[in-house]
Amino acid sequence: MARDLPVLFCYAQARGRALVDRLQGKRPLFVCVVAHTDTVEIPGLSAAGATPELRTYTPAADAEALFYGRARCIPGGVPANPLGPPGPVLITMAALRLASIPFFVVDAGCRVAPDAPVIALGEGPGGNITTGEAVPESRRIFERGVALGRALAPLADYLVVGESVPGGTTTALALLLALGYDAEGKVSSSMAAGPHDLKVAVARRALAAAGIRPPSDPLRAVAGVGDPMQAAVAGLVLGALHQVPVVLAGGSQMAAVLALLVGLARQRGQALDPDQVAVATTRWVATDPASDVAGLMAQIGDFPLLASALSFAEARHAPLRRYEEYLVKEGVGAGGAAVAAALRAGCSATDLLRAVERVYEELFG
Amino acid sequence: MARDLPVLFCYAQARGRALVDRLQGKRPLFVCVVAHTDTVEIPGLSAAGATPELRTYTPAADAEALFYGRARCIPGGVPANPLGPPGPVLITMAALRLASIPFFVVDAGCRVAPDAPVIALGEGPGGNITTGEAVPESRRIFERGVALGRALAPLADYLVVGESVPGGTTTALALLLALGYDAEGKVSSSMAAGPHDLKVAVARRALAAAGIRPPSDPLRAVAGVGDPMQAAVAGLVLGALHQVPVVLAGGSQMAAVLALLVGLARQRGQALDPDQVAVATTRWVATDPASDVAGLMAQIGDFPLLASALSFAEARHAPLRRYEEYLVKEGVGAGGAAVAAALRAGCSATDLLRAVERVYEELFG
Repeated sequence: MARDLPVLFCYAQARGRALVDRLQGKRPLFVCVVAHTDTVEIPGLSAAGATPELRTYTPAADAEALFYGRARCIPGGVPANPLGPPGPVLITMAALRLASIPFFVVDAGCRVAPDAPVIALGEGPGGNITTGEAVPESRRIFERGVALGRALAPLADYLVVGESVPGGTTTALALLLALGYDAEGKVSSSMAAGPHDLKVAVARRALAAAGIRPPSDPLRAVAGVGDPMQAAVAGLVLGALHQVPVVLAGGSQMAAVLALLVGLARQRGQALDPDQVAVATTRWVATDPASDVAGLMAQIGDFPLLASALSFAEARHAPLRRYEEYLVKEGVGAGGAAVAAALRAGCSATDLLRAVERVYEELFG
Repeated sequence: MARDLPVLFCYAQARGRALVDRLQGKRPLFVCVVAHTDTVEIPGLSAAGATPELRTYTPAADAEALFYGRARCIPGGVPANPLGPPGPVLITMAALRLASIPFFVVDAGCRVAPDAPVIALGEGPGGNITTGEAVPESRRIFERGVALGRALAPLADYLVVGESVPGGTTTALALLLALGYDAEGKVSSSMAAGPHDLKVAVARRALAAAGIRPPSDPLRAVAGVGDPMQAAVAGLVLGALHQVPVVLAGGSQMAAVLALLVGLARQRGQALDPDQVAVATTRWVATDPASDVAGLMAQIGDFPLLASALSFAEARHAPLRRYEEYLVKEGVGAGGAAVAAALRAGCSATDLLRAVERVYEELFG
């Protein structure tokens, strides 16, 4: 049955198929965790947002778009890529609407507060990781995440947890390196060809500034070189996991959170159950020639990597078709939300494409 | 069937019984909206919290107790009455646990931020109503409440919405007067004999300062002489109501919110559906010789007033028995949570009492 769904099985396929079979028709709850890291202010690192000024507004704008159908804190409806295409929140909005999936937004530490009813976990935005003191309150954010995960889990059959953190693939890289993974050149990017050299230089400087020699203590790694979203999602997952499975909706950033979760479990003498946690992303991340998320997954453990088969090759609107050039790949849990819509309501890739086009037309006429 | 439940029908009985029949066994979601009003700093007005200093911490402490089983920001486990009895959050904790009812906490404007994953709606704490500018951002809070209500409604069969606002019966009185109701001497209090004269004097001064001549525009009344919780709950209810019924969990404060809702509906040329909204409170409010919440309800419309039959007369612990002296009556949606536990899991008044005693023993040995 799952074979007909628009879902690609990219790593740990058998386990991924079993999970998809188990979750089909079940009630997901989508949670988007938004945060800021000052790391994004390093020139050349991120293209999430039309300009560097607007980039700071991206997490808040994404949150507002989920609640109100368009952002309130920026013009133009939703955050856009500097080269034109609208951001991935369009996909998330379409998927959640199409399958009537309930959602929450968690503010793990924004610079611009969303004008929306978000769950506040944060202690302020994350610092630039090159200071080596990116998230001093990582443990407190983690603990609040645990409490939130416990509270959310009874509301659904499984959780789908996405993120919006401009600059977050660089903090993902730094976290993976701090935890001892071979991640250089493997993380994805908000640009077609990721600026790997710059990211690696920034991450190495961060580890040195934090005095981290891998493998680091997990929450200490986040405190030094991570971002607030990582601590929040890790807590949320561990709080929910004894009650329901969790799908981490994202690419490199969620691979890094998965590595963090594995580290936290190991620290407690436990193992993270690979039948209960998976990563789900977009086709653009899964097939990205400039990154290797499956290679990251393979290092972390035998956890499934799923991807939505959603394609914009046949999209009616030219800006959407540019996704196929890897200009925009993932964010706001777009891939995981698309997978959840397929599982919940049997939406085909074409259903999803049409729904995205409708959102596009609502916003841009 | 509903006849055996520990629920008292205090106003609009037939409609209340029909609602109870409809909700029995259904899945509630409990939402506690917490806020501060500087009005509470007027000496002699409130006894929510062991001392005036601790009073400011009460909303945060209640939120933390729901999440962690005890408050983090104050000593002593949970907020207490100056005369000794622990606050009503004990009842809410017991009821939610007993019936496994999921919950959220909404911060509509606290002075002390809860150390917990709360949904932030607020624009800062409410001002002293005698300034006539208590909640300048009432419309913005209301609108965020609407968005939140829409997001929460799909998660449950009905919502139960409580509050923790020390000083909130005075802002309730002021709101009711602003809306044109005969409320003097009728609102409840956190003391055995409420300081009605003081409350009336404060409320009248507030209306004069705000330049309000009843009946006022509803959100204008909140902006002038209300508190942030009122705007938040009104929005939440209107956002949820087209999807699910809502039980307002409280006494005078929720009667005031109901009046606000009726006013908002009327303003739009609509009527609030009395089959979809009820108020549920405790036996201590329902039988309070010093207030008249049923009398308020009768002025507002034909909306049911329910009360939990929970009694502490036979409680094992002396501080709990003091509830029967009307020292503590309501708060944190205690009465509504107790009613919801009865509806959800068939809990008897004795089941509830024993559960409250267990929480008491966990906290105080």
